[in-house]
Amino acid sequence: MKMSKMGVRPEKTTPRDAEAINQKLLIQAGFIHQEMAGVYTFLPLGLRVLNKIENIVRKHMDKIGSELLMPSLSSKENWNTSGRLKTIDVLFKACAANEVSLAKSDAEYVLCPTHEDVVTPLVQGYNPSYKDFPISVYHIQTKFRNEPRVKSGLMRCREFRMKDLYSFHTDELDLKRYYDEVKKVYQEIFEEIGIGKDTVIALASGGDFTKDYSHEFQTRCENGEDTIYLNKTTGVAYNKEVKPEGADTSPNFEVFNAAEVGNIFPLGTKFSKAFGYEYTDKDGNKKPVITGSYGIGTSRLMGVLVEKFHDDKGIVWPKNVSPFGVHLIDLQQTDEAEKIYELLTKEGVDVLWDDREMSAGEKFADADLIGCPIRILVSSRSIQNGGIEVKLRNETESKIISIDRLMDFVKNV
Amino acid sequence: MKMSKMGVRPEKTTPRDAEAINQKLLIQAGFIHQEMAGVYTFLPLGLRVLNKIENIVRKHMDKIGSELLMPSLSSKENWNTSGRLKTIDVLFKACAANEVSLAKSDAEYVLCPTHEDVVTPLVQGYNPSYKDFPISVYHIQTKFRNEPRVKSGLMRCREFRMKDLYSFHTDELDLKRYYDEVKKVYQEIFEEIGIGKDTVIALASGGDFTKDYSHEFQTRCENGEDTIYLNKTTGVAYNKEVKPEGADTSPNFEVFNAAEVGNIFPLGTKFSKAFGYEYTDKDGNKKPVITGSYGIGTSRLMGVLVEKFHDDKGIVWPKNVSPFGVHLIDLQQTDEAEKIYELLTKEGVDVLWDDREMSAGEKFADADLIGCPIRILVSSRSIQNGGIEVKLRNETESKIISIDRLMDFVKNV
Repeated sequence: MKMSKMGVRPEKTTPRDAEAINQKLLIQAGFIHQEMAGVYTFLPLGLRVLNKIENIVRKHMDKIGSELLMPSLSSKENWNTSGRLKTIDVLFKACAANEVSLAKSDAEYVLCPTHEDVVTPLVQGYNPSYKDFPISVYHIQTKFRNEPRVKSGLMRCREFRMKDLYSFHTDELDLKRYYDEVKKVYQEIFEEIGIGKDTVIALASGGDFTKDYSHEFQTRCENGEDTIYLNKTTGVAYNKEVKPEGADTSPNFEVFNAAEVGNIFPLGTKFSKAFGYEYTDKDGNKKPVITGSYGIGTSRLMGVLVEKFHDDKGIVWPKNVSPFGVHLIDLQQTDEAEKIYELLTKEGVDVLWDDREMSAGEKFADADLIGCPIRILVSSRSIQNGGIEVKLRNETESKIISIDRLMDFVKNV
Repeated sequence: MKMSKMGVRPEKTTPRDAEAINQKLLIQAGFIHQEMAGVYTFLPLGLRVLNKIENIVRKHMDKIGSELLMPSLSSKENWNTSGRLKTIDVLFKACAANEVSLAKSDAEYVLCPTHEDVVTPLVQGYNPSYKDFPISVYHIQTKFRNEPRVKSGLMRCREFRMKDLYSFHTDELDLKRYYDEVKKVYQEIFEEIGIGKDTVIALASGGDFTKDYSHEFQTRCENGEDTIYLNKTTGVAYNKEVKPEGADTSPNFEVFNAAEVGNIFPLGTKFSKAFGYEYTDKDGNKKPVITGSYGIGTSRLMGVLVEKFHDDKGIVWPKNVSPFGVHLIDLQQTDEAEKIYELLTKEGVDVLWDDREMSAGEKFADADLIGCPIRILVSSRSIQNGGIEVKLRNETESKIISIDRLMDFVKNV
């Protein structure tokens, strides 16, 4: 993609009210635009990162669930049935905005903050028999939560993107089996995104959902909201809210800041009982369905990645979610840059080509800010040396390599 | 995909309150689930069609615009500035749903029914100079409209999917040039989706937007809401609302029912004036920016396709947007079906494999209802004949072909 065609560009100035590092850097580098507190536009660069994250999530989810797309508008009745119309403090509703509304009814809708209250009656309608189970469906969709505090950029928003998976089982044992499968798949996702070795599964409160523990995927992050207590002997991690007695003083526990990147809840019969979802077993008896719920906030994850991977010059994206594999800078305005752009594009490498009329210094600063893993520079120096100047985002020195070796170099980063 | 794993399935019974053919067939065949009047879940089959439509639209849009993703929540201030807070009768607002809300402020937001009022100040912030133009950005996103009547299935919803493109220019001439480019690209999109030859560009009222004509892409459709007057001599088409005098009785006009599948509006300075978006020309003078807006309702298009392409047995999808290329039916429960599934999948053909334990009659009826272009049947008859039974959705007779020739057959449909 040519930078001159993006329609928007790095802002460079720090937004006045921005507090979180991810918010500052993502706005400065032109990934997102703040519409209001907690509400963002994903600009072309940001949308590419979001899509890469969501496509990795989707690829792994397809192994264990069937993708659909539930709506954001939901009937108040569903949320009344579950009891959550009264208990979820961040619930938004949608209703007619003005007096000229043509709608006959004054219907009000819930704007879904999550979808247990939608997916349960949905699956219930299709699957009455034990033969139909287990069932697992997921979607990647926009959620709405009327959060009181939204000071942490993409890490907490009023409108955000989320992958939510729901599973339905005939018994607790099968839920447990599937639950462990999801744990494994989540670990594969975080591995591919580039935070595998930094991420632990921590026991946490089941909250409103369940009296059992829920499980949070927590990744080490200086500015994360959570504190994790890792038992170095057993390898079991605990969110601060459920930490064992004595963990604060025991040398056996490592304590670190972390950001939640995923969570899984064994819901049991909470929602199936509320909606009266019983299946018929092989003897003709009615039994309550056992359910689980599994989330990954995909836009939140983008914010967490920036908190984890940045330096004083800008973002340092993990390779698999970088908006582009290569950032191509052309200082010569010759045909050379176009040749390289076409060579790389033909080989399937996605290239951000800074073709703008700006100084070298400005272009270098933008490349550092945007944070693609490889910078390729077409300059008189490199052309005279019969090669191309390349620099990795996480190294300080550049080097000149011949065009013949360029593809090998790019593929091996 | 194995049908047994979809989690949901064809309902077969006609929904009680369904009136439109697309609504009945899409629900019966398991493509969508009606959550409330005008609000639908896209089930796995339906999401595949929606994705195929949106990916075709995206591929062509990328030639003429830069993709981003604007939010659904917008500040009331923007809509007050444009004046549309008072004039759009289908506007939804979002606000706290209950008394337990933790939000400090009682902020209310507009739930966007379209995005002129969001994109204009967004682009304005980045692009002050004549050097930045033309600019064109688009997104494919969920829209909300509090429609009073929602009796036509996916053709008119309260929550729906839409591609909207916005362009910004320094003068009317450049808008005209770009406008004509969009017309050409829209025609390519409708061609690829399978309605090219049935779709005309009709002059229509500019409505609230402009005193000029706007242009609607109208496709021939018995149950469409619009009536088109086509001047057979000049080739110019008119929406009934702007038809020339005498068109009703002149033999020179062909009159037909049609459904709108896209629209383009030359907005001129309507929004740039409201938001005070002026650019600085090369002599340092301030001039109002000229804008255009271009929509395709992607979920609506799915409904229109079903209205156009169905018979008394079910849907007949155009090849490029069919949920699957091949519907594989296995009556033998042998390894044969799996071999064919793997053979086709390896070659990049997407296959819906009906692996359920059901009668041949039920499977055939579901295949007709779902409407994939090719049905492949593994039966004792075909196995005895050393081949595979294939049937096209739009033909009545099946035939047996050898496995060696299967790939050629599938690719040439």
